[in-house]
Amino acid sequence: MSEAIVRFGILGCAEIARKVSRAITLAPNSTIYAVASRSLEKASNFAAQNSFPPQTKIYGTYDALLEDPDVDAVYLPLPTSLHIRWAVAAACKGKHILLEKPVAMNVAEFDEIVKACSENGVQLMDGTMWMHHPRTAKMKEFLLDKAIFGDLKSMHTCFTFGADADFLANDIRVKPHLDGLGSLGDAGWYCIRSILWLADFELPETVTALPGPVLNDAGVILSCGASLRWKDGKVATFHCSFLSHLTMDITAIGSKGTLHVHDFIIPFQEEEASFSIASEAWFDEFVTRWTGKRSEHVVKAELPQEACMVKEFSSLVNAIRTKGSKPEMKWPTISRKTQLVLDSVKQSIEQGFVGVGVLQ
Amino acid sequence: MSEAIVRFGILGCAEIARKVSRAITLAPNSTIYAVASRSLEKASNFAAQNSFPPQTKIYGTYDALLEDPDVDAVYLPLPTSLHIRWAVAAACKGKHILLEKPVAMNVAEFDEIVKACSENGVQLMDGTMWMHHPRTAKMKEFLLDKAIFGDLKSMHTCFTFGADADFLANDIRVKPHLDGLGSLGDAGWYCIRSILWLADFELPETVTALPGPVLNDAGVILSCGASLRWKDGKVATFHCSFLSHLTMDITAIGSKGTLHVHDFIIPFQEEEASFSIASEAWFDEFVTRWTGKRSEHVVKAELPQEACMVKEFSSLVNAIRTKGSKPEMKWPTISRKTQLVLDSVKQSIEQGFVGVGVLQ
Repeated sequence: MSEAIVRFGILGCAEIARKVSRAITLAPNSTIYAVASRSLEKASNFAAQNSFPPQTKIYGTYDALLEDPDVDAVYLPLPTSLHIRWAVAAACKGKHILLEKPVAMNVAEFDEIVKACSENGVQLMDGTMWMHHPRTAKMKEFLLDKAIFGDLKSMHTCFTFGADADFLANDIRVKPHLDGLGSLGDAGWYCIRSILWLADFELPETVTALPGPVLNDAGVILSCGASLRWKDGKVATFHCSFLSHLTMDITAIGSKGTLHVHDFIIPFQEEEASFSIASEAWFDEFVTRWTGKRSEHVVKAELPQEACMVKEFSSLVNAIRTKGSKPEMKWPTISRKTQLVLDSVKQSIEQGFVGVGVLQ
Repeated sequence: MSEAIVRFGILGCAEIARKVSRAITLAPNSTIYAVASRSLEKASNFAAQNSFPPQTKIYGTYDALLEDPDVDAVYLPLPTSLHIRWAVAAACKGKHILLEKPVAMNVAEFDEIVKACSENGVQLMDGTMWMHHPRTAKMKEFLLDKAIFGDLKSMHTCFTFGADADFLANDIRVKPHLDGLGSLGDAGWYCIRSILWLADFELPETVTALPGPVLNDAGVILSCGASLRWKDGKVATFHCSFLSHLTMDITAIGSKGTLHVHDFIIPFQEEEASFSIASEAWFDEFVTRWTGKRSEHVVKAELPQEACMVKEFSSLVNAIRTKGSKPEMKWPTISRKTQLVLDSVKQSIEQGFVGVGVLQ
C-alpha cells in the first residue's frame, strides 16, 4: 500500500525554496499544497515561476497559510532570525516543520522551537540535505568498520564559495538582523554537521575559533574557522567562507584508514556521488611509492538528496499521522548539537579565540 | 658536454640514507664515494646491504670521512640534534651539504650552519624531496595563473602516519635528545613547507598552535596542528601526527580555483603523480549539480623525486666548482623559513596555544 501524501505549505519564497519545492514534487509521499509570502503577488509569481500545481493555495501572509487545516507540514526557508517566531507559530498550529539551517540564531531560540514541537507532537527536521544522500550511509559503513578505518583520530572539513559583490552587499546572509550568523551559519553549519556526523554526534569538549576571521562592517562573519577537541583526543578543524572558490571537503583520518570527499554538500552530479578510501596504506621498501588499498566508491542516487530528505521527513509525518508514532527526536537532537557547536565558535570569536567548553 | 660527477660521502646509516643513496646512484651527476658510521662494521654492512659500488670508501668515524679530500659533498641524515655539530664540521672542511629535515633543533642552530656554509662557500640544501618533483612545478603554474586560481585565500595541509609500538617506544623521532622535535619536526616539517610553498614563501604574521597536541612521557610531540595567518588575510591550518593512518594532503583555495593533492610528499606511484584542480566552479539553476571546470593532471617523472633533488643539488655544486658560481641561497632561505614557523608552533604549544608573532 502506498503512503499517504503529505501536503506542504511553503512559508516564504527564498531562492532555496525553489530547490526544495522541486524536491517536494519529486518525493513520492509529498506534494506542494500552498505557498505564502508577505504579499499575495509575490507568492503567486513564485508559484507560477516554479510550475507549482495549478490548484496550489496562494497566501499573502504566513498566518493565513498556517490557518489552513489542510496544510500538513511547512517548509520554512525564512531568514534565520525569523525562525523562532514562525516555527513556533507553525508548531502551535500542529504543522510538522522542515526548517532551513541554521535552525536558529542560537540554541536558546532553538530550544523554544523544540519545546513548541514537542508540546504539539509535530516532527521537526532541518534542511541539511546531504545527510539523506545514500552516499552518506555508505560512507558511514566504511567509517564504522574498525578493520578498515580503525578509530577516528582527526578530521578537517571546509565549505567555501566566492560570493559576488551583490551578495556581499545585499544578501540576507550578510545582514545582522536576517541571517545574522553569516558564513558560520550558512557554510559553517555544514562543516560542523559533518564533523559531528563523523564523530557519531558525540559533542567535542572544547571549541576554539581560529585567528583571522573576516567580518563585514556590520559585524557579520564572512569567513572563519575553528578547532575542536574531544575528551578521547580526537581533533577536528574546519574552515568556512564566502570569500573563496567553491570547495566542500571532508577528510577523516582513522587509525587504519582515511576518507576523502570533495563534494559532500552538493554532489558534482545529481545521479551519483563518490568518495575515496584508503586503508592500511604504507610504503614499499625504499619509501618511494604507496602500498595498501585505495579505492573510489560510486553511489547511485535514485532520487536527488533533497528529495530523499523530503521523503524521509514525510514518512515520519505519516507515521505520526497514521500509526500514532512519536516524532523522531534524532533529527532535532542533531540540529541542536550542530547549533550548540556553532554558538561555541561564535562565542570563541567574540571572546578573542579562547577555548569554549561545550555544555554536554 | 656532460656534467662533472659529484662524489658523495654518506654521513650516518639511517634508514632514509638507503633511499637517498639509491637517488645518488640514479642521478646522472653524482656518485656514492664514501660512507661513514660510528663503527667501521656498521658502515661496511650498510654499504654491502645497499649495493654501494665496491670501491666505496668505508669510514668508522664521521671525522675520517670529512678529512677525505675526494669527498665533494656530504649527505647528512643524522638525528636532528647532531646536525649543528656535523653540518658545521662538514662546511668547515669545504664539503657541500645535503641536510636531512628538520634542518636543526631551532633557527638559532640553523643560522650557525648557514654561517659556516657561507664562510666556506659551500652549497646547503635540505632533503625535502617533493619540492623537486616535476609535479610541484606544474602545480605552481596553476597556482600562479590568476585567471584560473585567483588570489590565494586559505590552505590546509596534513601529514599523518600510524607509527607502530616499536617506533613509538624506540625510534629516534620520539627521543628528546635525538630528533627531539617529534612529529612536528618529522611530519609537520612537510606541512609547513607546503604552506610556505603555496604562499610563495611569504612568512605568516602569526602562528597559533591548535589545542590538543599529544606528547609522549618525555615531552616529545606525537601529534599537533597549527593555524597560520598572513597580513593580507590568508589563513592556513595543518595537522601532523604519528598516531593516524597515512595521509598527506594539500588543499589550497584561491578566489577562483582550488587545488587538491593527496600524495604530495611521496607520490602514490614513482613514475607519475597527479593533482586535481577546479576553477570557476558553481552550480546549475536548481543548485543540484556543479558547473565549471574540474580536471585531473598527471605529470610523468623521468627520475624519482629524490633523484631530481640530488641532481639539482649536484648541479649547484658543479656550478660552484667549475664556474665559480656562488652557492644558491634559495634553498637555505626556505629551510630557514620552514624552521622558523616550526619553532613558532613549538613555542605556541609551550606557551599554552597563544598566537606567536613570526619575526620577518
